[in-house]
Amino acid sequence: MDVFEAIKGRRSCRKFIEYPVEREKIIKMLGCAIYAPSPANKQPWEFIVTNNMRYNQMLKKVAESTKEKLAARSGWKWLATFNINFITEAPILIVVVGDPKQHGAEQFLDAPSLGYQHACSASIQNMLLAAYAQGLSTLWLSLFEKKDVRKIFSIADEKDPLAIICVGYGEQSGETPPRKGIQEKVIFLS
Amino acid sequence: MDVFEAIKGRRSCRKFIEYPVEREKIIKMLGCAIYAPSPANKQPWEFIVTNNMRYNQMLKKVAESTKEKLAARSGWKWLATFNINFITEAPILIVVVGDPKQHGAEQFLDAPSLGYQHACSASIQNMLLAAYAQGLSTLWLSLFEKKDVRKIFSIADEKDPLAIICVGYGEQSGETPPRKGIQEKVIFLS
Repeated sequence: MDVFEAIKGRRSCRKFIEYPVEREKIIKMLGCAIYAPSPANKQPWEFIVTNNMRYNQMLKKVAESTKEKLAARSGWKWLATFNINFITEAPILIVVVGDPKQHGAEQFLDAPSLGYQHACSASIQNMLLAAYAQGLSTLWLSLFEKKDVRKIFSIADEKDPLAIICVGYGEQSGETPPRKGIQEKVIFLS
Repeated sequence: MDVFEAIKGRRSCRKFIEYPVEREKIIKMLGCAIYAPSPANKQPWEFIVTNNMRYNQMLKKVAESTKEKLAARSGWKWLATFNINFITEAPILIVVVGDPKQHGAEQFLDAPSLGYQHACSASIQNMLLAAYAQGLSTLWLSLFEKKDVRKIFSIADEKDPLAIICVGYGEQSGETPPRKGIQEKVIFLS
């Protein structure tokens, strides 16, 4: 698939169908993830992949209570009714784990930046594009307490579970959510 | 260009040639940036684009002193001799500015995650791929103090300049830096 088609066509999926995902497609996603750039080429990422629905069920359970907590805190009505069934519909979960110790020289700045998180995010974008190009749908999930995800997936305290990517074949409806155009987002300095 | 070819072929460039970049290619990069996913579709990014070498020169000046500071703090010898001429070689700079106020429900977590930074990083990866697919080379620069970059580009204190992308036609030599394979980076839980 053309790279521009992938970038423009990719969208978040919140409704997966019951259909297994080919292992080689996941491998290809991961093979793209590791080609992201990272500070000093430290490759500060790890990926936990599972097709065992036990994990989806544990995750959904904590996600439900987290969602209730956030709905109460935010007062956002849409959040209270937000359907998170996609967590147990998706046949594959990929937990993206950053390693805060794998940083480049940015660690020595007066105001250190979070290069490991940026690199992990770039690796996620590569995965989402690779998924889309193979006919798969994805959701980049970040509504979780890290302590819960560390516990479910046995992640060490010093590692940072940044995101969980839900992967499967999706039912897509409607249009891609609109974007503010570059005329609103870009300043040209000449 | 095929999306997998773009993902695998893209690499960081530290040697740009003196050749102007077509405006439409930059527009296409920005058009891809804004198609990244973001929490609650908040699109927490802004891009400052310049082809005025005055900015490159100001940036290089602060980058030199930052580099010296980091070399002293880190004791990393390669950093002391790291050539940053690419900053004034690149005909185009794109400053990626995140807006910490444009977040989704993750702001209400006990341990809030930095969704706006993740979204901006995904938008950068889209830009890097779009550049590569158009024959351009890029460098994702993060070795700067944010206060310096805010001053040079007149960025408000409440906005977060996350990265500067150097863009131009590049001289590439050698191979893509090696990656640790997925056998080292992936755990399969079944």
